[in-house]
Amino acid sequence: MYIGVDLGGTSVKIGVISKKGELIDHKEIPTRSRGFFQVVINDILHHSNEIIQLNGYSWDDIEGMGIGIPGLLDMERGVVKMAPNLNWQNVPIKWFIEEQLKVPVKIENDGNVAVLGEAWTGAGSQYKHIAMATIGTGIGAGIIIDGHILHGKQGMAAELGHLPISEEGLLCGCGNYGCLETISSATGIIQKGKEVVTLGKDSLLTAQYKDEIDKITAKSIIDAAKEGDNESLQIINHAGKLLGKGLAIIANLFDPQIIIIGGGVSQAGDIILDPIKEGFKEHGLKDIVASVEIVLAHLGNQAGMIGAASLFKK
Amino acid sequence: MYIGVDLGGTSVKIGVISKKGELIDHKEIPTRSRGFFQVVINDILHHSNEIIQLNGYSWDDIEGMGIGIPGLLDMERGVVKMAPNLNWQNVPIKWFIEEQLKVPVKIENDGNVAVLGEAWTGAGSQYKHIAMATIGTGIGAGIIIDGHILHGKQGMAAELGHLPISEEGLLCGCGNYGCLETISSATGIIQKGKEVVTLGKDSLLTAQYKDEIDKITAKSIIDAAKEGDNESLQIINHAGKLLGKGLAIIANLFDPQIIIIGGGVSQAGDIILDPIKEGFKEHGLKDIVASVEIVLAHLGNQAGMIGAASLFKK
Repeated sequence: MYIGVDLGGTSVKIGVISKKGELIDHKEIPTRSRGFFQVVINDILHHSNEIIQLNGYSWDDIEGMGIGIPGLLDMERGVVKMAPNLNWQNVPIKWFIEEQLKVPVKIENDGNVAVLGEAWTGAGSQYKHIAMATIGTGIGAGIIIDGHILHGKQGMAAELGHLPISEEGLLCGCGNYGCLETISSATGIIQKGKEVVTLGKDSLLTAQYKDEIDKITAKSIIDAAKEGDNESLQIINHAGKLLGKGLAIIANLFDPQIIIIGGGVSQAGDIILDPIKEGFKEHGLKDIVASVEIVLAHLGNQAGMIGAASLFKK
Repeated sequence: MYIGVDLGGTSVKIGVISKKGELIDHKEIPTRSRGFFQVVINDILHHSNEIIQLNGYSWDDIEGMGIGIPGLLDMERGVVKMAPNLNWQNVPIKWFIEEQLKVPVKIENDGNVAVLGEAWTGAGSQYKHIAMATIGTGIGAGIIIDGHILHGKQGMAAELGHLPISEEGLLCGCGNYGCLETISSATGIIQKGKEVVTLGKDSLLTAQYKDEIDKITAKSIIDAAKEGDNESLQIINHAGKLLGKGLAIIANLFDPQIIIIGGGVSQAGDIILDPIKEGFKEHGLKDIVASVEIVLAHLGNQAGMIGAASLFKK
């Protein structure tokens, strides 16, 4: 048995996972990241203890605890070097937890645990060359090459969200212009929706949000698009096509067997998947396009926990 | 001792290489690719035999023959599935040579042997995460991740030349529009030079080539740029900056320690390296840009032979 932890900026998901990768039970708690990091670590200790006991196990049954973390990590030493969403810097999380639990701890980047989860029991379980894009507030990615996760020299690989491919050239949070993330992330989609309302364009969005523009979510724009709202359709189309172009770049460079799309925005389904495939086909090499499947993720928001647990899989 | 063969569309280079990766002797012969593939294979057999004897060795001293080939390969079976520059399809080159020589043969893609050569004894010898771009008629690349060459599922990885990043949207040989290769390869550079002459622009190129436009080479445009010709400078600048953008994409995805630039066009030196670095800095993530070196290749056109020999390195 393993414990898989998906430590996000908003919530912490803690799961008990079998040796076959089945999620036996899990719980989700809010991330108390405003305080000292020790508060979050104590929450992980407390709630993992609770869920183990609730299911009739003891710590002796647990072979290890894997943790997915949104940040720059020193995986070998188990240190979170920098995690802006958590307000953490240089936190030796492995040391703190192993001190208390006497159970081995491994940490891994959040984009990587997602693809590891899908590779173990999800959409990628039949493949060894897998790319996964996670479309949420930002755009993350994880890449598996011949069964091994790609880290790069300092764990910064697979920065799909920061490919400079939008001709609009909007300023990105990273300081560069034209990053994929400025258009195809939930944040990029919301930004475009707000423009529609601000400009008073003829749209369901304007009708619904003109007095409460800050309530627009990516989901509200996707829903309007599904209802046939033209402005919303254009936003989703544009986001999807540019993401498809980004995935064509991934495919031309990595030659994967399958590309998996996860994250909140992927739940829009075909309305985003169709333009993604269109952009992919337009920009991918023909032999690559013909040999890659693009599919939606299977595990939803369980992928992180399962992938984190997989760090201990033999 | 190894034999390293760099089998190109124009010439075949055959080298005797020591266990330390030193090129002891080599010879270069034209590629007789118009005839039956057996002609080229016989040339390799004949001339490798000659160079071994000339240096006082026998085949018993040779542990293996590595061959770099521009095409799509089945490396395991040693078959050239498709090599347009050689007019080859489904040639079991490993089988043919091993039949005659009783020396083990390994084959590898030409972009990959170049980076393997530079990684062994050239610009990358101190590194384990290496990307190399080769700028010639086309744009090739080879990527080494933690000491291992990246192949992808079908050996099509690292297609840097076909990243869709030029806003000009020119048609590429691959059938797509806006590939990096349409601007930053020797072919792309020559195309722009010809436009200058055709339009009769005020340029050294027009003065020199207006009656023999087909004699324009990438080198002649680079030379004109070095003499301060404005039109030529713009062409080289544009090619360099877009290549820098392509390398930023490689770096944002692979997080390498070093990027090596080889091939004929790289011999232009700083006049192309400066805009490459400019484009790289503009589009790479800050932490990546700060931690990657961009350097020119060290081994020139010996990299292929040395890299091919390295396939047998223990």
